[in-house]
Amino acid sequence: MPRKILLDCDPGHDDAVALLLAHGSPEIELLAVTTVAGNQTLEKVTRNALAVARVGGITGVPFAAGCTRPLLRTARVASDIHGESGLDGPVLPDPDPALDVPLDPRHAVDVIVDTVMAHPPGTVTLVPTGPLTNVAVAARKEPRIVERVAEVVLMGGAYARGNRTAVSEFNIGCDPEAAQIVFREPWPVTMVGLDLTHQALATPEAVARIVELDTAPARFVADLLEFFAGTYRTLQGFAAPPVHDPCAVALVIDPEVLTTRRAPLDVELHGELTTGMTVADLRGPEPADCHTRVAVTLDHARFWNLVVDALDRLGDP
Amino acid sequence: MPRKILLDCDPGHDDAVALLLAHGSPEIELLAVTTVAGNQTLEKVTRNALAVARVGGITGVPFAAGCTRPLLRTARVASDIHGESGLDGPVLPDPDPALDVPLDPRHAVDVIVDTVMAHPPGTVTLVPTGPLTNVAVAARKEPRIVERVAEVVLMGGAYARGNRTAVSEFNIGCDPEAAQIVFREPWPVTMVGLDLTHQALATPEAVARIVELDTAPARFVADLLEFFAGTYRTLQGFAAPPVHDPCAVALVIDPEVLTTRRAPLDVELHGELTTGMTVADLRGPEPADCHTRVAVTLDHARFWNLVVDALDRLGDP
Amino acid sequence: MPRKILLDCDPGHDDAVALLLAHGSPEIELLAVTTVAGNQTLEKVTRNALAVARVGGITGVPFAAGCTRPLLRTARVASDIHGESGLDGPVLPDPDPALDVPLDPRHAVDVIVDTVMAHPPGTVTLVPTGPLTNVAVAARKEPRIVERVAEVVLMGGAYARGNRTAVSEFNIGCDPEAAQIVFREPWPVTMVGLDLTHQALATPEAVARIVELDTAPARFVADLLEFFAGTYRTLQGFAAPPVHDPCAVALVIDPEVLTTRRAPLDVELHGELTTGMTVADLRGPEPADCHTRVAVTLDHARFWNLVVDALDRLGDP
Amino acid sequence: MPRKILLDCDPGHDDAVALLLAHGSPEIELLAVTTVAGNQTLEKVTRNALAVARVGGITGVPFAAGCTRPLLRTARVASDIHGESGLDGPVLPDPDPALDVPLDPRHAVDVIVDTVMAHPPGTVTLVPTGPLTNVAVAARKEPRIVERVAEVVLMGGAYARGNRTAVSEFNIGCDPEAAQIVFREPWPVTMVGLDLTHQALATPEAVARIVELDTAPARFVADLLEFFAGTYRTLQGFAAPPVHDPCAVALVIDPEVLTTRRAPLDVELHGELTTGMTVADLRGPEPADCHTRVAVTLDHARFWNLVVDALDRLGDP
Repeated sequence: MPRKILLDCDPGHDDAVALLLAHGSPEIELLAVTTVAGNQTLEKVTRNALAVARVGGITGVPFAAGCTRPLLRTARVASDIHGESGLDGPVLPDPDPALDVPLDPRHAVDVIVDTVMAHPPGTVTLVPTGPLTNVAVAARKEPRIVERVAEVVLMGGAYARGNRTAVSEFNIGCDPEAAQIVFREPWPVTMVGLDLTHQALATPEAVARIVELDTAPARFVADLLEFFAGTYRTLQGFAAPPVHDPCAVALVIDPEVLTTRRAPLDVELHGELTTGMTVADLRGPEPADCHTRVAVTLDHARFWNLVVDALDRLGDP
Repeated sequence: MPRKILLDCDPGHDDAVALLLAHGSPEIELLAVTTVAGNQTLEKVTRNALAVARVGGITGVPFAAGCTRPLLRTARVASDIHGESGLDGPVLPDPDPALDVPLDPRHAVDVIVDTVMAHPPGTVTLVPTGPLTNVAVAARKEPRIVERVAEVVLMGGAYARGNRTAVSEFNIGCDPEAAQIVFREPWPVTMVGLDLTHQALATPEAVARIVELDTAPARFVADLLEFFAGTYRTLQGFAAPPVHDPCAVALVIDPEVLTTRRAPLDVELHGELTTGMTVADLRGPEPADCHTRVAVTLDHARFWNLVVDALDRLGDP
Repeated sequence: MPRKILLDCDPGHDDAVALLLAHGSPEIELLAVTTVAGNQTLEKVTRNALAVARVGGITGVPFAAGCTRPLLRTARVASDIHGESGLDGPVLPDPDPALDVPLDPRHAVDVIVDTVMAHPPGTVTLVPTGPLTNVAVAARKEPRIVERVAEVVLMGGAYARGNRTAVSEFNIGCDPEAAQIVFREPWPVTMVGLDLTHQALATPEAVARIVELDTAPARFVADLLEFFAGTYRTLQGFAAPPVHDPCAVALVIDPEVLTTRRAPLDVELHGELTTGMTVADLRGPEPADCHTRVAVTLDHARFWNLVVDALDRLGDP
Repeated sequence: MPRKILLDCDPGHDDAVALLLAHGSPEIELLAVTTVAGNQTLEKVTRNALAVARVGGITGVPFAAGCTRPLLRTARVASDIHGESGLDGPVLPDPDPALDVPLDPRHAVDVIVDTVMAHPPGTVTLVPTGPLTNVAVAARKEPRIVERVAEVVLMGGAYARGNRTAVSEFNIGCDPEAAQIVFREPWPVTMVGLDLTHQALATPEAVARIVELDTAPARFVADLLEFFAGTYRTLQGFAAPPVHDPCAVALVIDPEVLTTRRAPLDVELHGELTTGMTVADLRGPEPADCHTRVAVTLDHARFWNLVVDALDRLGDP
């Protein structure tokens, strides 16, 4: 039986791949897609999400726009990494009401709440791949979702080094207060952070396999990865770009694709140098009762197999 | 033309008086009442709000329950001041679906958003008299309310000394992050803080005038004030208890009832000793362009006239 | 019997007056003068202290230079208030080894320690009128001074509004960590803050009495006050300048010159808006056992009598 | 030519080994030993330093006691790791004025300043292996030592995980303000942190080589390591105890014993979860101009050779 997920994202190159991976994987039933300001403004990431839906032939899934800014901090987009559109590289299809998935009139927060409450307890997994603003507000507006959600598998954070600052990662650093809310609620949380996603490099071999598929979605992904490779090479000196967000989706598809360990996790809000850091306590053996986990090691081949197979399944929608 | 207000409250003795004052004043049109965890749990303050509605004969106004806890901080109720029920003192009517105002099924956050968006711009005043969680979440969920609201007149904060700590007041200290959100949005904000409300003492003369009315609502208020006098005398050494929340309503009814001055205002979130402090910059002359104001001096007689007149108007509903 | 004091200062206009007041008052025995970076660099304030000594005919008292910067914070001088020299206004005598008090070769920290340890317990009062760096380092280097000092009477801080920021005063804000060290040690501390010193205005009447003395020190003080009046008028809108530092000395001379009350006191180090604030807990009655006090009300006439009398006593040295 | 060092320590088991390593290595000229409260009270660690001097036959080197507590934080000793004496395990020689090195009457801070100023610029290396209180106070009392010191090679901190908390190490966490002072001064600083010292395990092979020497100092070290092994096994689950402090001395003796990399370094003072963390920016390639370095990889065999050889050289003093 496929696992039901709600994807909360801010596409974003790797968010786009995550969305296509989820849609193309029979192990996953995509219940809804919600957007949040992060890599770019809410308007842009929402437009991008709809564009990816069209490219991937995603229909029958509600898409809803959410929070336009973090709870407390000033919004800062990542146009250096994702370009002005948030999805630079491929030619995006022009918005077209006749062809696009219609935007759900509800707010993303309400879609999260409604979706979780409409399904049996323990059946819906939240997969946030952007700042955690929507999820945090949903948990405050309807606290009952916390015990009802199966688990939260999120891309964000880092227990070793960061990318936004020396020790903080972009998604968490954008809205650390929201992240603290999400990490401190007692639902199971798996943090798929930079420690893991910096292993998910889009190597030339991986990209070649995608190019070889020669479908519209595959070409779209290849164009995304080409642009992404450029900004990551220039700005952070990566030989191949890390494809963060699909790692969280991959873990839901296949628990063998990466290893995790239990660790107390929290988010620093008050530091001069460390605000936005996800502080994991990795001393000693894994604690027995701990609702939070961190992702540690990726099976690189298995991961790219998932991505290539999903794109292959999508064909030319 | 009466001023339309939405009262966001956590009754609470002084919230109850504020609600009756608003309902009994022809200068005010009460659009909705929303509740928030603060003086007591959400469940208790909501039950209290409905009880006050029945005592005061308030009908035709939506009452909606909101957030059950602050954004980030651990909830702490004020049972030392307001008792176990949150409204100790008078005998509260038992909840009765046949007699009580029905609770609106919507969340308080949505009632705030819907109410503001349903009325013309610049016509709805928000009057929060509890922690600012609901208002902050509403501003994040629907940012357009910020420019649409006429103004925010809130009870909370202090620019001199606090009550929760040396420098922080209870409402703001409960949810300082929510307060910072509300203070930093560009709508007009008037902070009616302890500096002002500690002048609104329920003196024996004031209480005697209420007792004299000899109606059910007046007896209810007298009982509230008697209990409130006891806790304030014991815990904070006040000869007569300060009746905080009605001061904010009074300012909406009659701008002459208290003086204000413009002052930059913000909320400290990161202090060891000062978290929850409302920091007002009172140096030098009033700045010309400043969207925040603080209340300074109360006309004590005029204030109690408003309260007594409102109770008198309510009669025996 | 005169009270023995060590004056730790950063002259500075009001420091200069404080020094002359101490020297000209028979109620005080000036044991040593130490300098600390604050209003200007250590080099400048030390030179200024020696210049004041020459103007006032102070001899036989060790003058020693101390810390060149705060413990942790970046040094920021107050040239806007005190001018480039730190003592703008009067013509300062050129340094002259033949005429100046020789600078003690010891570090101010060691002079503080040596002085306190060389006198019987409970006989030496520290009077700091600049940032508290020297005093804090002395307390860490030789912890025994804490129980040996009679009391610390300092100019700095504010329990209502600040001058450096909305809520922090210059001396404390320069080195809040040093201030916290001093406030938390168990010696008796009296904080003579802006709340008090903003009452010590150099009114035209006060200045006229000084001018009338027509001695070199009096003319020097008059020139200082004229310059000080200008910067305070321009920068902070004062009709007459507050003469902060002599208030601390005045309290040592004559306990009737100002009222104080006991209050727990601490310094905020971690706030975004409040770092450097001296947080006094003024709720309720004065606590019985509390080693810290704040100055509240000045007897303006009595204060200026002390200053004028001291200058009168100095004559033309 | 041997490198001149001043060892500032809080013995402490590993401090004791560090002291013997320094004394027994011809590559090092030990100019002075200063003590600071840390692993135990100042009184105990000073007594321990003298005891180690007697065991190791160290004479002609000034030993001076320093600060009794951190700048701001409350002192907390590590009796769980080092025992009640700070040096539990071996039988310590009773203090004996006839046999002990006499304690220098100067304060450690003054010994640091005097030693650095008495030698040519660039010739004295500071090797702190405890909290950085003494060194920080010295830098504030005599700022000229900063450009005069050759370098600071310190044991403390961690760029990955901590021991005192999830992310902070004991020495730095004891006095993070002092550490920030030391890290921010422009002298060359090498941080030999837990990342490195957790590689310096006293394996059974290493201990066996020491036991084999069969001298009094070697037996003393063996007894120390046996006790240390016990507390580390029980409290932190180490199979063999990490011998932290000698690693800093070893780097001075032989730069090949460990690798380092340049990295911006700072100390967090304001975090809720991260105070005392040494934040290293390890993103991207090593910066060209950076006065701070972190130690990365230890040559375990080479390290223990240094220790065994030094003990061997000491013989039976």
